[in-house]
Amino acid sequence: MESLRVALGSRSYPIHVGTGLLERVELYRPHLAGGAVAIVTNAVVAPLYSSKVKQGLQGARVVEIVVPDGEQAKGWQTLEQVFDALLAARCGRDALVVALGGGVVGDLAGFAAAVYQRGVALLQVPTTLLAQVDSSVGGKTAINHARGKNMIGAFHQPRAVISDVTTLDTLPARELRCGLAEVIKHALALDAAFVDWLEGNMQDLLARERAALVYAIKRCCELKAEVVAADEREAGPRAALNFGHTFGHAIEAGAGYGAWLHGEAIAVGMVMAAELSVRLGLIRKEETERLRKLILRAGLPVSGPALAPEKLMELMALDKKAAQGKVRFVLLEAVGRAALRGGVPEELVREAIVAAAQ
Amino acid sequence: MESLRVALGSRSYPIHVGTGLLERVELYRPHLAGGAVAIVTNAVVAPLYSSKVKQGLQGARVVEIVVPDGEQAKGWQTLEQVFDALLAARCGRDALVVALGGGVVGDLAGFAAAVYQRGVALLQVPTTLLAQVDSSVGGKTAINHARGKNMIGAFHQPRAVISDVTTLDTLPARELRCGLAEVIKHALALDAAFVDWLEGNMQDLLARERAALVYAIKRCCELKAEVVAADEREAGPRAALNFGHTFGHAIEAGAGYGAWLHGEAIAVGMVMAAELSVRLGLIRKEETERLRKLILRAGLPVSGPALAPEKLMELMALDKKAAQGKVRFVLLEAVGRAALRGGVPEELVREAIVAAAQ
Repeated sequence: MESLRVALGSRSYPIHVGTGLLERVELYRPHLAGGAVAIVTNAVVAPLYSSKVKQGLQGARVVEIVVPDGEQAKGWQTLEQVFDALLAARCGRDALVVALGGGVVGDLAGFAAAVYQRGVALLQVPTTLLAQVDSSVGGKTAINHARGKNMIGAFHQPRAVISDVTTLDTLPARELRCGLAEVIKHALALDAAFVDWLEGNMQDLLARERAALVYAIKRCCELKAEVVAADEREAGPRAALNFGHTFGHAIEAGAGYGAWLHGEAIAVGMVMAAELSVRLGLIRKEETERLRKLILRAGLPVSGPALAPEKLMELMALDKKAAQGKVRFVLLEAVGRAALRGGVPEELVREAIVAAAQ
Repeated sequence: MESLRVALGSRSYPIHVGTGLLERVELYRPHLAGGAVAIVTNAVVAPLYSSKVKQGLQGARVVEIVVPDGEQAKGWQTLEQVFDALLAARCGRDALVVALGGGVVGDLAGFAAAVYQRGVALLQVPTTLLAQVDSSVGGKTAINHARGKNMIGAFHQPRAVISDVTTLDTLPARELRCGLAEVIKHALALDAAFVDWLEGNMQDLLARERAALVYAIKRCCELKAEVVAADEREAGPRAALNFGHTFGHAIEAGAGYGAWLHGEAIAVGMVMAAELSVRLGLIRKEETERLRKLILRAGLPVSGPALAPEKLMELMALDKKAAQGKVRFVLLEAVGRAALRGGVPEELVREAIVAAAQ
């Protein structure tokens, strides 16, 4: 087991990455305060891994809350289902919410924990690669709104993240690839050496070799932990982690949530952001080719759904990084270094979208 | 104008109490970050005071969001209305939400600000006595759930509280009395000298004499600011501010939200909590009589709606102060000193409820 720490003062917490962690009692014990434990999971994950987590939670009063699978479930209706179940089980402020599942479950259960009785404790137990490398770390929680993804949410740090890579054995190949999109994002935005490593090890990751997975997950968590510690509430540097996401979120919303998976939309979003970076003279055209190649090697798309550039630009105007109505973009200053930029001419954005479609 | 400060480190903020404050530009200016300003108010308050606030916000892009009046509006549906309007107006993370109204508007708009795009800035501009002495200060925000009041919420401190007592001129008498219930609560829970002052000045408050109102509001805010600074997230001492509220919330829920106003329910709740304090040997019977007299002098009820004690006790089990399924009560150790207690025998709770009904 590899362990690292997110340094946030009194809200610091450990991330554990390894095999056979779900059922390990000592990973849960420090977080049991005597109240009820609510495992929030979905209909796909529950039959696979719920019993292992219950084994790990031995002695606690456990309530299981099973929500529907998929991005469509990440809305108020499902949240209400979680609140109803927590209240029916008389969970108090001393309750512990365990988010067992992928990014949707983590975001939803995390937001439920953030606002249930004004906040209860949370453990993230991610079971998809995307959640293990990204969404379970850093405290961002949210639900979607018809007008935009993750529009309603909170910063709510977990007490710990328990990432068991054996859960990736049952992950559909398409979702594994979506996780790799976020792995690639971490590398492109923050660590050129990790880009090199990925170019050499993509096959092992696709073959789910455990040592490679543990390395990649740990490296992503280290990178993210560092950024989050420096900027918990995304005032500045944390925005780098949104590389590809301004375009990506608009693609997801435009295609209709669920039609394109998050990782697929982000893959195309990274190509668009890279093309925009070229147009602003930040990186060379060859670097976008290197990026395209890496994304293709992970089995991910590099061109988007048939959406008019104007539609995407309209959706982006709703992005949370917009300031005073102006969209800001996370762009590559180099492979391995992303930064937030405002004042980008609309025409260049349009050109970048068109370039990514070709 | 009287001003005081809630000391919470980087989240410290001023409270201003006085007359003619709504339209004072210099009170708003420090909080305008250049983004849109969303005034969230209700259908009763908007025609009375919205234009004054807009005057104070001169130069800013202002969006007005008018929600229905009343406790029934404090739910998800209204919250969705606020989110829709914020998104339609393309409010970004740099938006400022101004909560203009009573406790319902403050709680609802405050919660909307807490979770919209994971949190935007908030100004509380309370227009009822209840909101000016209590709910606008301290950062508690929430909406109701069918199974319990304020069950979904967040701690989200405002950037400032602007309490203009001239708004109390238009407050219905019943709501003025409800505000007095919270004034009495502050005194009983935290300040014996303030109890004495209230016994001597209740008539002036009921007559809406401005000097008396400013004094009472300022004193309540001082008391609350001190408690909140010591215990922002209600781990301990802040619970004293919930004196009367465990019973009171159950009364409100049991009678159906809106049938009994919050202050009325809290008035009876304080009598029940005092009767329970007597039964635990904490205060003498005469002290409950003094408390009853003060509450009656404010024109508030001292006995509750016809609800079976069992029903109230069941509703109380859902209270947020419950720990490991056990209800904890805020009890009087003396007039002017309340504290949280657990392990209270159910039979005594039943007796206290019955005693308050007589």
